[in-house]
Amino acid sequence: MSQSINIALIGATGSVGEALVELLEEREFPVKELHLLASSESAGQSLSFRGRQVRVRSLDAFDFSQVQLAFFAAGSEVTKACHERALAAGCSLIDMSAALPLAQAPCVLPELGREGLPVLKAPFQVSAPTPSAVACALVLTALRPVVQPHQLQLTAMLSMSTLGRSGVQELARQTAELLNGRPLEPKGVDRQVAFNLLAQVGGVDEQGHAELEKRLAAELPQLLELPDLSVSATCALVPVFFGDSLALSVQCDSPVDVTAAQQALEAATGIELVEAGDYPTAVGDAVGQDQVYVGRVRAGVSDPRQLNLWIASDNVRKGAALNAVQIAELLIKHYL
Amino acid sequence: MSQSINIALIGATGSVGEALVELLEEREFPVKELHLLASSESAGQSLSFRGRQVRVRSLDAFDFSQVQLAFFAAGSEVTKACHERALAAGCSLIDMSAALPLAQAPCVLPELGREGLPVLKAPFQVSAPTPSAVACALVLTALRPVVQPHQLQLTAMLSMSTLGRSGVQELARQTAELLNGRPLEPKGVDRQVAFNLLAQVGGVDEQGHAELEKRLAAELPQLLELPDLSVSATCALVPVFFGDSLALSVQCDSPVDVTAAQQALEAATGIELVEAGDYPTAVGDAVGQDQVYVGRVRAGVSDPRQLNLWIASDNVRKGAALNAVQIAELLIKHYL
Ligand SMILES: NC(=O)c1ccc[n+]([C@@H]2O[C@H](COP(=O)([O-])OP(=O)(O)OC[C@H]3O[C@@H](n4cnc5c(N)ncnc54)[C@H](OP(=O)(O)O)[C@@H]3O)[C@@H](O)[C@H]2O)c1
Ligand SMILES: NC(=O)c1ccc[n+]([C@@H]2O[C@H](COP(=O)([O-])OP(=O)(O)OC[C@H]3O[C@@H](n4cnc5c(N)ncnc54)[C@H](OP(=O)(O)O)[C@@H]3O)[C@@H](O)[C@H]2O)c1
Repeated sequence: MSQSINIALIGATGSVGEALVELLEEREFPVKELHLLASSESAGQSLSFRGRQVRVRSLDAFDFSQVQLAFFAAGSEVTKACHERALAAGCSLIDMSAALPLAQAPCVLPELGREGLPVLKAPFQVSAPTPSAVACALVLTALRPVVQPHQLQLTAMLSMSTLGRSGVQELARQTAELLNGRPLEPKGVDRQVAFNLLAQVGGVDEQGHAELEKRLAAELPQLLELPDLSVSATCALVPVFFGDSLALSVQCDSPVDVTAAQQALEAATGIELVEAGDYPTAVGDAVGQDQVYVGRVRAGVSDPRQLNLWIASDNVRKGAALNAVQIAELLIKHYL
Repeated sequence: MSQSINIALIGATGSVGEALVELLEEREFPVKELHLLASSESAGQSLSFRGRQVRVRSLDAFDFSQVQLAFFAAGSEVTKACHERALAAGCSLIDMSAALPLAQAPCVLPELGREGLPVLKAPFQVSAPTPSAVACALVLTALRPVVQPHQLQLTAMLSMSTLGRSGVQELARQTAELLNGRPLEPKGVDRQVAFNLLAQVGGVDEQGHAELEKRLAAELPQLLELPDLSVSATCALVPVFFGDSLALSVQCDSPVDVTAAQQALEAATGIELVEAGDYPTAVGDAVGQDQVYVGRVRAGVSDPRQLNLWIASDNVRKGAALNAVQIAELLIKHYL
């Protein structure tokens, strides 16, 4: 790769979209032309990229044959409605909305480098993993020499930015209403989330699983190349603006060497290990950072075959935008 | 039992203490004299009990031979310093501070009735289980005909009232400071907890386990009479004033009948089952209630031998004060 390519960014006015624009510039991604797209309501706004203002246009009329790669960061409905239009026009895409089945759009962990890339032929579609999967996969990949898991148990305590800008606004609004003693009228979520925890993100299926939980259970075995890995996840929404907190429990067949696990995490790139006694938090450590923070590394109280961890990660930056740009950097090198 | 007894309440001015006074009245506990005790700083305050004002006195000078039963709700240091003084004076005690080893002060789940009581001889000491253990044990006892667990995995997302009145005040203060754009100076906790999650409660031991996590891992096998049950817990502090949220994963040897589990929970007393689709929350459901709320009852995404649940419970009321009064009701019937 040495050539620059034309890029489309769908969902440019959202929190992930904005972070993508920043990171494409920061990491000097070889962008020839950048097309910023959103709903027709945002058309006419502009964002700064490499010192000049780029206008946001409506996705509806966009001609995908102008670009080689598109980032889809505008929700799963938009991906579902438009991904075939992009492919038909010869545009490859990175979907960030978890809209496409993994068999059709495999998910990629950029830290694995070329080895982690599926065999592709442009135009192709790949999935950027969900933020919790990114963080867990990064940690478990670093632990691979020490820990061979057969089961993962995850409680993902997700910040309100998981719901996009409107989620962040809603937490701020609800908090202010409550502190001012005004009656609460929830918007966008169905109940009070300020000073409260919501046990699920969105609806659930007949079996009681939320989309995000099923997606995690599908993404992690693929990312870790452990097809038989059993993954169980509870994804909750917490009254935090940005940054996810994950309580991850890794079940192995034999006792875990906790010291060796700490050393492996200490040595890994992309991971910041916080020493025992101290611990990482979403707001105090992870937000705004490229690394995933890990702490509370310990065995089970009564089960030496278990490794327990607390992970804090910036869901918008490392969990979404940075990760997608890293994926694009790999793809452009090998397939575009 | 038909006689009234003299009671001492240590920690009367705290959040648990205040709830205890209310519940002793509400449940018409056979109190002859009620002695309210706290630190010397609170001496002279008074609390209302059965329509009259009862003065709070200093614990230091208290003569335990005046009472038959004492509730210790003033922190583990106070229990450690005074429990022998109480016993020596012939006073039995219910410790609410998790200060005493379970071998010395067994823990009791009142819902099990007489069967759950150890053999005791006054003066005795028993432990009130920690709030998360109360909630989990209640749920797992209801599930006993359907679910035989060999492992529990718990993420306990504890409200700031876990730290007592000062925890509640600190969350309010930090939230107001942040919303007003003032610099944050944490007190009582070592960092920002408003709009953030703290990965541990208090310090940890050499192995990385917090006291509360070890206590849970010891209490649950005893309460459930499953000595080999493996319990792994992560206890975190969340920016919620009152009410705990628990993500509990129950691992069994054979596939779980989820419908039968729901029916067992539906039929149990002390438990309110929230149907699939909807879910319980600490603030919206549990706080102020005697029941423990359970929802999100489902198998593992990829493991039918797993049962996952979300539990919301009032840590001060059902988790502590109500549960201790229920224990006292049993004890007075059989042993006092
Ligand atoms: N937030 C996270 O933590 C996170 C992490 C990983 C992946 N993601 C995924 O990334 C995507 C964006 O998330 P976000 O947090 O940035 O959400 P957001 O702040 O709500 O932004 C949504 C973006 O999508 C655009 N959009 C909505 N409907 C559209 C339509 N019909 N046609 C074209 N554009 C449309 C919006 O444009 P307008 O401003 O014109 O409405 C906006 O730019 C979602 O698919 C989400 O699942 C989010
Ligand atoms: N909060 C919960 O969710 C919860 C649940 C289960 C069990 N517990 C346990 O219940 C106990 C009380 O908790 P809390 O939440 O009520 O705490 P709190 O609101 O901080 O109240 C602490 C109480 O202890 C008294 N106290 C402190 N030091 C004392 C001393 N040296 N001598 C005599 N009294 C002293 C305080 O009296 P002053 O007002 O005079 O300082 C106050 O009455 C703790 O052991 C806690 O572990 C709490």
